[in-house]
Amino acid sequence: MNDRLARVALSRLSEPGDVRLAAVVDRMGAATVYRMLRDEQDVAGVYTDVAARLRGLDPQRDLDEASAQGIRFVCPGDAEWPPPVEDLRTAEPLQQRGGAPLGLWVKGPLRLVEACHRAVAVVGSRSATTYGAGVASDLAAHLGESGTTVVSGAAFGIDQAAHRGALAVKGPTVAVLACGVDRAYPSAHRNLLEYIADTGMVVSELPPGCAPTRVRFLARNRLIAALAQGTVVVEAAARSGALNTANWASRLNRVLMGVPGPVTSAPSEGVHELIRSRGAALVTRGEDVLELVSPSGSFLAEPLRGPVRPEDDLTDRERQVLDAVPVAMPACLDSLARTAGIAVREVPAAVQRLLQLGLVEQAPAGWRRAPTTAGGE
Amino acid sequence: MNDRLARVALSRLSEPGDVRLAAVVDRMGAATVYRMLRDEQDVAGVYTDVAARLRGLDPQRDLDEASAQGIRFVCPGDAEWPPPVEDLRTAEPLQQRGGAPLGLWVKGPLRLVEACHRAVAVVGSRSATTYGAGVASDLAAHLGESGTTVVSGAAFGIDQAAHRGALAVKGPTVAVLACGVDRAYPSAHRNLLEYIADTGMVVSELPPGCAPTRVRFLARNRLIAALAQGTVVVEAAARSGALNTANWASRLNRVLMGVPGPVTSAPSEGVHELIRSRGAALVTRGEDVLELVSPSGSFLAEPLRGPVRPEDDLTDRERQVLDAVPVAMPACLDSLARTAGIAVREVPAAVQRLLQLGLVEQAPAGWRRAPTTAGGE
Repeated sequence: MNDRLARVALSRLSEPGDVRLAAVVDRMGAATVYRMLRDEQDVAGVYTDVAARLRGLDPQRDLDEASAQGIRFVCPGDAEWPPPVEDLRTAEPLQQRGGAPLGLWVKGPLRLVEACHRAVAVVGSRSATTYGAGVASDLAAHLGESGTTVVSGAAFGIDQAAHRGALAVKGPTVAVLACGVDRAYPSAHRNLLEYIADTGMVVSELPPGCAPTRVRFLARNRLIAALAQGTVVVEAAARSGALNTANWASRLNRVLMGVPGPVTSAPSEGVHELIRSRGAALVTRGEDVLELVSPSGSFLAEPLRGPVRPEDDLTDRERQVLDAVPVAMPACLDSLARTAGIAVREVPAAVQRLLQLGLVEQAPAGWRRAPTTAGGE
Repeated sequence: MNDRLARVALSRLSEPGDVRLAAVVDRMGAATVYRMLRDEQDVAGVYTDVAARLRGLDPQRDLDEASAQGIRFVCPGDAEWPPPVEDLRTAEPLQQRGGAPLGLWVKGPLRLVEACHRAVAVVGSRSATTYGAGVASDLAAHLGESGTTVVSGAAFGIDQAAHRGALAVKGPTVAVLACGVDRAYPSAHRNLLEYIADTGMVVSELPPGCAPTRVRFLARNRLIAALAQGTVVVEAAARSGALNTANWASRLNRVLMGVPGPVTSAPSEGVHELIRSRGAALVTRGEDVLELVSPSGSFLAEPLRGPVRPEDDLTDRERQVLDAVPVAMPACLDSLARTAGIAVREVPAAVQRLLQLGLVEQAPAGWRRAPTTAGGE
């Protein structure tokens, strides 16, 4: 049996993220490992776990049936195989899940390797707030407009908002599932998933037909992190699965980012913790994310600036004189000098400058503020 | 003339934060500098600036009049003089303001040196949101309850909320003003300032009677930062004066902290920038602040935890079995093994554990979930 069919068979036999199996496949090749298990020989302690699933296994039929549904199996050696997932080979396991996937079942018009070339994962709480969902959606739309693929998990809340934000601007988006790509999980996202499969890509380590379980979510999260150059967590309560994805991003040396929120909002607690203690970069807009995931210096976010005021260009001394000019009762030059605490001979030039800028006006008895200017700190 | 009276006189002659004057007083002593200026001799280029204010100067009268209003002048050499402000002596100037104060005019029952022993500045936007004001107030109350002095500037918005939060729990609070401590600025805060002076302390570099100006605000901000071990910025739009205080905190090697907020909220932009680019620590609660300003290891914030669930203690394998147990139709042990992807012989022990925890129940045809447990990621 060839490597490809053996990988298909193993992907049906094993649970995704089985570190033992990934290691032994790396060492001995998929075909050998599959043949041994087929012959009821143990390998790396995997046999007893997969024994109950050996009956009726038919990888070629799996491939044919998948193909009939527009689903293809991408594995190492294929031109479409994305090199970034190979980083999982050497990354330390997390919650006993890890290793590179045996292959990926994919559905959609994107080519996986190209979709991952410039990709950012946007993940977060299923119980997102309106605020979080809005931010995720805006961020994804910004990334989509720049041609960056938005990777997420198609869950309720932040994931959904991220996919929709990308779809709304016809940006590339990839949904990575913890079940077969032929299944809709959650079922309320059937339409969303169909639309992603029509225009972007739905990806899973699990063969068609498989249902999601907790270990599959944990294994899935490592793929979300691996397929993207960086992961943005938008909202994540203290136990959100998004924090598991964040851990994977760190473990894979991907850029980990977090969008802050109100400290009074539970769904932001996990993100604040990531920023405070886990080295996540604080990001507030799409530009920040693009700057962080782009090669150094190739993208620089425009710095935020406050409004420009006529007073901005004043020297310290001119500003002192301006502050000394009364609003109502005009003051003479001597009085301005005393109030400002600067030399009388410096005052006339300063007052002329302020007059040019329209900040003061001359009255018969001296100088006062021009009507439009406001004082203050 | 003695050093104390000379400092009173110089505090009336000069603008606060005049770096030239601070340096020359350090070098020659206040009495010598004052005598030279009095004699119309220049010193460090200061004379022309102060000339207009020399007439009618009477420091003893200033002290007497202040004393009649319950205001005292604290200066180097006094037991009440707070050593932390001496750090300003060597800190690099900012916007041409800097240097240690000549002395401080204070009003209130606290002793300045003790009030500063454990103090945190809480500052932010005058145009605060309800969110920001609420957080500032909660934070200040938490600090107040721990006996930490809350230092702020008595401005609208965050400053006011911080003082009130401290006052509400009878915590020590210090208002540092950019005008004389006998003046109410802003005038709407007359009652607040009186209450602070009654129970805490109002502080200014400026002698009684002086009005606030921009340079005085800038000079004032350095005192807020210097009097505290750390500065928390709660909300600060792109040009807020609170960012000037934050700069001073950094320059003085104080702990700089920021409370995040919604990225859609302009008053939080400046804080996010401080966290992202200026090394401010993200804080979300009073415990975080206390941990950061306390001597290393003496105060540790309780980590945030999510809710505890019965599933938390399960092994990875037990969890896999739990995920395989159907909600409605019971499944036999063989079926559970196949679904979970683990050895049949491991299933009975796992199911017993799940039964003990009340997570599954036995039915005639096998096992199913106990009614109260929910599935999910």
